[in-house]
Amino acid sequence: MDFFDCISLAKAQALIEGTLADIVVSIEEVELLQALGRIAAEDIAADGDLPPFNRSTVDGYAVLSRDTFGAGEGIPAMLTIVGEILMGQAAETDILSGQAVAIPTGGMLPAGADAVVMLEHIEPSGNETLLVLKPVAPGENVVSKGEDIKTGAVFITAGTKLTSAEIGALAACGTSRVKMRRRLTVGIVSTGDEVVDIGATPAAGQVRDINSYALAAILTEAGCQVSCYGIVKDNYAELLQIIDKAVAENHLVLVSGGSSVGVRDHTVRVIEELGQQKVIFHGLAIRPGKPTILGMVGEVPVFGLPGHPVAAMTVCQTVVLAAVKKMQGGKPLRVGCQVSAKLTRSCASAPGRDDFLRVRLIWHEGEYLAEPVLGKSGLISVLTQADGIVQIPAEASGLYAGDVVSVEVMREA
Amino acid sequence: MDFFDCISLAKAQALIEGTLADIVVSIEEVELLQALGRIAAEDIAADGDLPPFNRSTVDGYAVLSRDTFGAGEGIPAMLTIVGEILMGQAAETDILSGQAVAIPTGGMLPAGADAVVMLEHIEPSGNETLLVLKPVAPGENVVSKGEDIKTGAVFITAGTKLTSAEIGALAACGTSRVKMRRRLTVGIVSTGDEVVDIGATPAAGQVRDINSYALAAILTEAGCQVSCYGIVKDNYAELLQIIDKAVAENHLVLVSGGSSVGVRDHTVRVIEELGQQKVIFHGLAIRPGKPTILGMVGEVPVFGLPGHPVAAMTVCQTVVLAAVKKMQGGKPLRVGCQVSAKLTRSCASAPGRDDFLRVRLIWHEGEYLAEPVLGKSGLISVLTQADGIVQIPAEASGLYAGDVVSVEVMREA
Repeated sequence: MDFFDCISLAKAQALIEGTLADIVVSIEEVELLQALGRIAAEDIAADGDLPPFNRSTVDGYAVLSRDTFGAGEGIPAMLTIVGEILMGQAAETDILSGQAVAIPTGGMLPAGADAVVMLEHIEPSGNETLLVLKPVAPGENVVSKGEDIKTGAVFITAGTKLTSAEIGALAACGTSRVKMRRRLTVGIVSTGDEVVDIGATPAAGQVRDINSYALAAILTEAGCQVSCYGIVKDNYAELLQIIDKAVAENHLVLVSGGSSVGVRDHTVRVIEELGQQKVIFHGLAIRPGKPTILGMVGEVPVFGLPGHPVAAMTVCQTVVLAAVKKMQGGKPLRVGCQVSAKLTRSCASAPGRDDFLRVRLIWHEGEYLAEPVLGKSGLISVLTQADGIVQIPAEASGLYAGDVVSVEVMREA
Repeated sequence: MDFFDCISLAKAQALIEGTLADIVVSIEEVELLQALGRIAAEDIAADGDLPPFNRSTVDGYAVLSRDTFGAGEGIPAMLTIVGEILMGQAAETDILSGQAVAIPTGGMLPAGADAVVMLEHIEPSGNETLLVLKPVAPGENVVSKGEDIKTGAVFITAGTKLTSAEIGALAACGTSRVKMRRRLTVGIVSTGDEVVDIGATPAAGQVRDINSYALAAILTEAGCQVSCYGIVKDNYAELLQIIDKAVAENHLVLVSGGSSVGVRDHTVRVIEELGQQKVIFHGLAIRPGKPTILGMVGEVPVFGLPGHPVAAMTVCQTVVLAAVKKMQGGKPLRVGCQVSAKLTRSCASAPGRDDFLRVRLIWHEGEYLAEPVLGKSGLISVLTQADGIVQIPAEASGLYAGDVVSVEVMREA
């Protein structure tokens, strides 16, 4: 397979978008803390005002702001203290002009009051009298009922991935159960006569099943529920049976190995048989990762990934995760974890394909340097030495030392 | 409490480092995939060479490189095909000068061979003869035994947080069980007469218990196991009993609310009673988050956090997580998820304290803009609108519009 037979990454991404346009996991209602890291299935609106009452943001005295106009160190406003607000309790009486009520941070303003004078700006004058040394404006040191979030306001939109910020906002609005997208279930199949389980000692010529673990880890990081279907020898009937089972039990299936064009390539035939000819693409103009397949078996995408672990992981992180996000119902992220960095050495790249280059990030004199982790094609040690990936786009013939590149960070806090 | 009575963030961080220097969670052995996102407890070395044999990186013919020297389109080297290597099997015979063996990508090189000629550079010439059109150098298209990772080489160091990259490398080395730091257990206590459970309808003056959920979410994101101990009214005896229980059952305890200096401040007294005067600091020169406490009860740090949710979350994300990472045994990250962005408006800050400003990130003409999410002190809606946090250091009196700032991104892929 030449790169001439491959489709571009952009074309593949458009095909994924189109093919999966209407395929989204279903909805379930979960306890609030179970929603962390998952995708909101619908817009969520507040069913009450936040705060539910006018609330003081400081320790001080609730007053009518106009009683303090013109007050200063030399000409304090004199007010009568008529009571005290306790935390968690409603104000018992309204206040009138000339009156003040002691109030703690978070306390509920009594009716009549429209501002709070901070303790720093008063002077006591006898038991029941207060001197205000600085005027307050209407609303000063107060958050009004509904000022934070109004009843009916959508404060989380469908497709948002919930972080601790959204969990806090949902708790504030009293939402103890939320409708979320189900976790995407993913089945992983490894193929290859040479592949043995990682617990086994490989005989001469054999290799361990790295892909089942590495792909499971990537998809777990992305919030999926992963099932591994073990290692299938290069046997068409057996592969057909396992993929059929994995498709029946999951939203998405990955088959690693067996995707290069060769005598033992069965994945395409399986997709054609199970999916009635629904191969979406076969061969991607990217490196590493050229022998990538996407087919559909009913509503289940089946990706054939390269057998080589670094290639399989790169395709999983760049192409499969795009499908995962689409199916999880998430909206496109406005912010990713990309850092700008200066490339430390020039890297050639064949025009017409997207190259994914693993780099190590080095903080140097106030900027990041991106040092390509070199080594022969696809060494495993490249993985643990790299901090992120730089994409060299198809239209570029390479990058020069000193070029500022965007690095997708793979290891974070 | 004035900012004058508070210690600086830098000083607090140094105190946390010092106090927790020898307090790290213990070690347990777990299955490989369970180690994802956790901290390696010790250096991990390869107990065999990777690859375990000389391996071809292409489809082609294994040869003695010196047999191809000088070969070209016009003067091809002629070799005799003496066999075929099958995937997963050892080479049956050595090869001698003048011989070649067909080999697939990933196949094991036969003894004698030191390079592989790609299919693209040969021309068949009868059943058993091969014309090589281009010379190969020694080692070309081959990864030698141990070239990727050598026996005994440390490929993961103690303190590394395991991502999919490390899981892949461990699988490659056949490490199916690994020694990891235990998950940090954290107990969360909410206090305050005004606080009610999020399932309840707050009466006038009451607020929902946002902190138990928001703090649990932050610590879950950080890989901790969280237990919530519910809401304690401002009652010393009850608080003492609950904190005592939480300390007995966890590595770390958070108490939110009740940490401002006031009539109902019991957290410090509890720490003093349980921990025998071990208050490490009380009052931080940061905003929000001034009324923060750290005490030690035996080897268990107890943080008193502000009652206000945005302040409690900010302190948790900036101060508590530093203690969490220390206790988890993780080494400092070389790369965080920070992006550079241009501030859209000037922000004042009092010198002498660190301010934490929540910002929204906007991608605009090839760069990020950081737009401060304004609003009165600590609105909940600020949380869901913000993408990250900018730290305005204590020595600055503010930041100007157009300043390039580093934004710690809080919502990522």
